[in-house]
Amino acid sequence: MAAKKAENFDDWYTQIILKAELVDYSPVSGCMVLRPSGYAIWENIQKATDAEFKEVGVANTYFPLFIPERLLKKEAEHVEGFAPEVAWVTHAGSSKLEERLAIRPTSETLMYEVVSKWIRSWRDLPMQLNQWNNVVRWEFRHPTPFLRTREFLWNEGHSLFATREEADAERDVIMGVYRKVTEEFLAIPGYFGRKTRSETFAGAEATFSIEHLLPDGKAIQGPDWHSDGQNFSRAFDIVFIDQNGEKQYAYQNTWAISTREIGIMLAIHSDDKGAVVPPRLAAVQVVLVPIVNDENKAEVLREAKKLHAELKRSFRVMLDDRDHLTPGRKFNEWELKGVPLRIEFGPRDMKEGQAVLVRRDTGAKRVAKLSGLSGEVERELETIQKGLFARASDALTKNTHSASTLAEVKKILDSHGGIVRIHWCGREECEARLKEESGGKVLNVPLDQRGKASCVVCQREGSIALFGRSY
Amino acid sequence: MAAKKAENFDDWYTQIILKAELVDYSPVSGCMVLRPSGYAIWENIQKATDAEFKEVGVANTYFPLFIPERLLKKEAEHVEGFAPEVAWVTHAGSSKLEERLAIRPTSETLMYEVVSKWIRSWRDLPMQLNQWNNVVRWEFRHPTPFLRTREFLWNEGHSLFATREEADAERDVIMGVYRKVTEEFLAIPGYFGRKTRSETFAGAEATFSIEHLLPDGKAIQGPDWHSDGQNFSRAFDIVFIDQNGEKQYAYQNTWAISTREIGIMLAIHSDDKGAVVPPRLAAVQVVLVPIVNDENKAEVLREAKKLHAELKRSFRVMLDDRDHLTPGRKFNEWELKGVPLRIEFGPRDMKEGQAVLVRRDTGAKRVAKLSGLSGEVERELETIQKGLFARASDALTKNTHSASTLAEVKKILDSHGGIVRIHWCGREECEARLKEESGGKVLNVPLDQRGKASCVVCQREGSIALFGRSY
Repeated sequence: MAAKKAENFDDWYTQIILKAELVDYSPVSGCMVLRPSGYAIWENIQKATDAEFKEVGVANTYFPLFIPERLLKKEAEHVEGFAPEVAWVTHAGSSKLEERLAIRPTSETLMYEVVSKWIRSWRDLPMQLNQWNNVVRWEFRHPTPFLRTREFLWNEGHSLFATREEADAERDVIMGVYRKVTEEFLAIPGYFGRKTRSETFAGAEATFSIEHLLPDGKAIQGPDWHSDGQNFSRAFDIVFIDQNGEKQYAYQNTWAISTREIGIMLAIHSDDKGAVVPPRLAAVQVVLVPIVNDENKAEVLREAKKLHAELKRSFRVMLDDRDHLTPGRKFNEWELKGVPLRIEFGPRDMKEGQAVLVRRDTGAKRVAKLSGLSGEVERELETIQKGLFARASDALTKNTHSASTLAEVKKILDSHGGIVRIHWCGREECEARLKEESGGKVLNVPLDQRGKASCVVCQREGSIALFGRSY
Repeated sequence: MAAKKAENFDDWYTQIILKAELVDYSPVSGCMVLRPSGYAIWENIQKATDAEFKEVGVANTYFPLFIPERLLKKEAEHVEGFAPEVAWVTHAGSSKLEERLAIRPTSETLMYEVVSKWIRSWRDLPMQLNQWNNVVRWEFRHPTPFLRTREFLWNEGHSLFATREEADAERDVIMGVYRKVTEEFLAIPGYFGRKTRSETFAGAEATFSIEHLLPDGKAIQGPDWHSDGQNFSRAFDIVFIDQNGEKQYAYQNTWAISTREIGIMLAIHSDDKGAVVPPRLAAVQVVLVPIVNDENKAEVLREAKKLHAELKRSFRVMLDDRDHLTPGRKFNEWELKGVPLRIEFGPRDMKEGQAVLVRRDTGAKRVAKLSGLSGEVERELETIQKGLFARASDALTKNTHSASTLAEVKKILDSHGGIVRIHWCGREECEARLKEESGGKVLNVPLDQRGKASCVVCQREGSIALFGRSY
């Protein structure tokens, strides 16, 4: 590992995700390949999120990849936001298409055109639809695997309600799912709040986000939820007959978590030895490495296979019985790849009826009895999972600062970055000045506001806002 | 239901899948929307297939949507097969791309370019990769939801082996998974065999398929497995060092099951009342309809809710307590949508401690005691699942004929269609003549061959082949 996390974060990040065989580059710049261990993380995130979605009544669907140009243009702000990044299909085989087709950068326009025909009465609402799919946004900035790619995988949730109250009430349910998944599965903390007007999703009335902090001191946006009000329902004529027999436009929300979140997670947990992946998401949770020499090989391997068979019932476990590699080489390889727990099992362990458990996150070693090994492994994995979240939370707290003047904000960001808690009057004028002078931006505005203080720019009365340089 | 299955199959098919709310059209011709009940079927097929894949060592991945034009052209036969149907991206935002990008019609070329870097030694093999994704083939023929769409969802499996023997041995494993999923989940039978040279996948050495029969007498291809030999490994330089230190090209296979299979399944099982969906795949397996009047409403609903809560532990069950619809309207709706089992529960049933179970497939009604209802429901669903497969198998057997002359083949296909077992010499000349004169084609050649007989065209010695008009 040439690049170190503390010295050269960008190079270190790219190096660990490539060497850990989580991703690879593809021949198209900005489009990445998710290798088996990388895709397994996404599968596990999907599984956890989807189970929660289903619990709250969300139904999965699949809408086509292509959006006709005329449709994309139907909501003015929306097309303005996405048009510069759209990949256009112009030909099929050797024929030129009559109308250009956008590869979906997000599916509002296509979905709402179709869904408008599915809704007639208030009885058809609420309707919470979702799809797990691929979208394309042709970024011209430098791509980074997971964090900024031209094609990415995500969920796009689209829900419709009869009233604004019901629509608004969905926010805490969906953001609650995302909070649970990010904290309990990805083991990363974040700050929840409302984005400013200038950072609101194209076509939405309000955007709420979870903001994470990368180890290099830059903030980065995680999952989000948008309140669209009736913007799209008016543009796409999504009308229902209410209980009084009156025509009404539906209220809509949209929400997403994407493969970007995997990059944030890896950047936060991993170290100079390689990737660190939380047990709940890892493709392989436990690797069992038998330590043998020519005399005891057959016997140790036979016992190791028994252990493997036992552990397989409860965990994603791999027996590394390759005989052309030394145990040391294997240890390095699995540390690089981020397997959360290593079990070493040699002739002495066999005699003593024990095994050695080694944590990937801390390197801590301890001996465990073979009787009840599954229970020990389960506790150890749980400890690792919680330990990762606790350490990430500590780091976030330590790197969250307060500032009451613009000069203080600048000083903090210039010296070590992080997230700065400021007071801000809420005016775009001050937001722009802050951005210009410090190179940072308002990340979001927490809902939990206690007391007022003067705006760091204009000294007018202001509310708490989170500020930082952002990825 | 205006169109009848027996009278106008094409209209009937489109009508039931639209009215059952399984799919909808999208604004782009040939691209369909999978509505919640339709997508749930695909999710369940995926889940069943994916579990089997993981059991045999297949690893999931994700490769990008875009294939640069130069890459698609790397294997000559392959590009010739796909180029006429490729959707081309030429612009991103307002910029023209330097090179056109194909939307993947299948991912061989992109995957193998990348995977060639992952393989160094025989120890890296076998490697069985898979992705569940969307692909685009811009068909110019009339599109039909599920059966022929320009975008569809599928699995594309791509595996690499050190020797031809190992590569060939994969065939029965993967086709075994597809056979299990089609028979035990979709409840549809099919004929397994080898496609002829002229019907072999573009770039492959051999293609094996499962061929199904639609109720209108036309055959249709289901899942397939292709042996690519070293065609692609030579084009993409997928080389490994074998155990003797020699460079070798890998042997490759590819395999797929797609959303087309859902259309085949629906066409086979459904009837003039609407969709029929096998219990293992249905979004809702059981609908519980309380039958109430003003006097007993509260009491019956309370008991129905208890039943619902109990059944929810084991089944995908819905309580239909809408009070603006009569039970009759509800029965029709759920029959249209293909819910496998209906439970009727009224005041008399409540008194007697029973419920009425009504099968969607046969319409058969029977009374079941509330004590042990879950067990009864489970048995009933299992009976429906098996009954569907048995009926479909009977229909396939009844509609499989034998012919020993070209005239007989034509007579059978002209009068009622179906699959015709013929003998064929294996020469392309006779295959072409058969096609020209009867409008059918050789579907596949069964592996299980007993004895020889004379070719229906040239009278030379021939093997058994399955023949029919094909979708």
